[in-house]
Amino acid sequence: MTKAQLIQAQKRIQPFIHKTPVLSSQLLNEMAGCNVFFKCENFQKMGAFKMRGAANAILNLSEKERQRGVVTHSSGNFAQAVALAAQKLNVKAYIVMPKNAPQVKKDGVKTYQGEIIECESTPEAREQTAKEIKEQKGASFLHPSNQDEVIIGNSTAAIEFLDEHPELDVILTPVGGGGLIAGTALAAHYFAESCNVIGAEPLEADDAYRSLISGKIETNDSFHTVADGLRTHLGDRNFPIIKKYVDKIIRVEEAEIVKAMQLIWERMKIIVEPSSAVPFAAVLTNKEEFKNKNIGIIVSGGNVDINNLPF
Amino acid sequence: MTKAQLIQAQKRIQPFIHKTPVLSSQLLNEMAGCNVFFKCENFQKMGAFKMRGAANAILNLSEKERQRGVVTHSSGNFAQAVALAAQKLNVKAYIVMPKNAPQVKKDGVKTYQGEIIECESTPEAREQTAKEIKEQKGASFLHPSNQDEVIIGNSTAAIEFLDEHPELDVILTPVGGGGLIAGTALAAHYFAESCNVIGAEPLEADDAYRSLISGKIETNDSFHTVADGLRTHLGDRNFPIIKKYVDKIIRVEEAEIVKAMQLIWERMKIIVEPSSAVPFAAVLTNKEEFKNKNIGIIVSGGNVDINNLPF
Repeated sequence: MTKAQLIQAQKRIQPFIHKTPVLSSQLLNEMAGCNVFFKCENFQKMGAFKMRGAANAILNLSEKERQRGVVTHSSGNFAQAVALAAQKLNVKAYIVMPKNAPQVKKDGVKTYQGEIIECESTPEAREQTAKEIKEQKGASFLHPSNQDEVIIGNSTAAIEFLDEHPELDVILTPVGGGGLIAGTALAAHYFAESCNVIGAEPLEADDAYRSLISGKIETNDSFHTVADGLRTHLGDRNFPIIKKYVDKIIRVEEAEIVKAMQLIWERMKIIVEPSSAVPFAAVLTNKEEFKNKNIGIIVSGGNVDINNLPF
Repeated sequence: MTKAQLIQAQKRIQPFIHKTPVLSSQLLNEMAGCNVFFKCENFQKMGAFKMRGAANAILNLSEKERQRGVVTHSSGNFAQAVALAAQKLNVKAYIVMPKNAPQVKKDGVKTYQGEIIECESTPEAREQTAKEIKEQKGASFLHPSNQDEVIIGNSTAAIEFLDEHPELDVILTPVGGGGLIAGTALAAHYFAESCNVIGAEPLEADDAYRSLISGKIETNDSFHTVADGLRTHLGDRNFPIIKKYVDKIIRVEEAEIVKAMQLIWERMKIIVEPSSAVPFAAVLTNKEEFKNKNIGIIVSGGNVDINNLPF
């Protein structure tokens, strides 16, 4: 994936996304012992960075492909992102979701006029159902994290971030399926003088950490983490980028995630998902390493059930 | 209070405050049937617009007066605002608080090194204790809402707002002690071509609504409202401004306040106090009146106990 592709993506998706603000808090800086800048993708359209990758992927389709629609399987932010991006581009979106997905997630997709196709709640059933739609309708399949145009679309958050804050020494992102950190690493590689990229992961779902050690894609046997967006594993398109350009992965415990999330809510007055608090938890638990540095954190999203908080 | 005083205040407090961002949400606009712009004073230092008035009032003191310190009685945002503004200007702050004030409020003041003086929880005890401090220490008394320099300081939020969005047809603010709406009305009078100012108040504490009808300052017998910042009544410095320049007061019911607050949290991903949701509740319950207009709302603050939410 080339620098030109990233630049082109940024131009292409610009009419369909928000340029999100960067916020910081003096109190949190004092607490962390460094300057932390939060790139607020929780303020992105549909509430998460996923809008960038979804928009870029659909914009990359030919007119003919767009006429046949797009399909994805997701019960999270990517489902809403595809539905909204498709709606804006007048493309039909088929969203495969497990029958038992929370009503609030289904409602999110319906708000953006995505067509929900229900399936059993196993990974196999999801993939099979998406495959059937792809064959029946001729729809293009979009993967939430392991697809070049999605990764490139995601990179635009870090491009904006580095443009506004070229002084960043490090950018941290949460690591789930690997699409955000891979895009961020590409952006830092192409657009920063010298900016490290570090991933942050729950100890309870530390597949990326183990993958970087073993050199192959590891999975999670269980994932008892509050950071529900980070339970997925890396893919063959993003893992090579992560291996090449990501400095390391920091793991954090559940209590640290919840504490970091609460601090961001109380001090910054912004609503962030548990997954988005993981990088700040990594900063708070590694103060020596980040001391006095300029730290960028990509706040991945803000879609959280406010009637069911972990604190 | 003159236009020159407002301009001077804006210049004077600028190094001590944030220029807060203005946010909006397409979904909320669709829901409301108008364009709503939120001036996010919840992102202000210490989390509320009160920082503006407190900073301006202290900056207005002579060097001699500053050496003797400042005193206020408040258990809310103004206590923290005075403590923080005083700390930044190297002035001693005495904060009179009722013994039974919540620990979280006391901790807020202590964070900014304000000295808490406890008293009984009656209005008389508060005023008496503040008076004693004033006499003993020679400290200058600062009123949360009924003091010219506080009102003038508060006006700077609307000055910034109108500067960024001169197209605003209306600005709505919540009405508690009257300091914010009076400042906003002055700003609209001096800096806008034609922008109405409307107050929003809980039906359960509608003293300002009744005051505008009777022509004299009315009080609340009871105030069973979730909007705990709006229980106070107007004062002799701000009421004349409100009478002269405020278009009207809209009253909203408790359920509407809670619904508006939840919508702002879920859709805008920002944390606002119940008081700050009152103006948006007023818009949602008066859609015909605001249809297709450009509506500005001053989000007064974001200091809320996230472990004790009304939804």
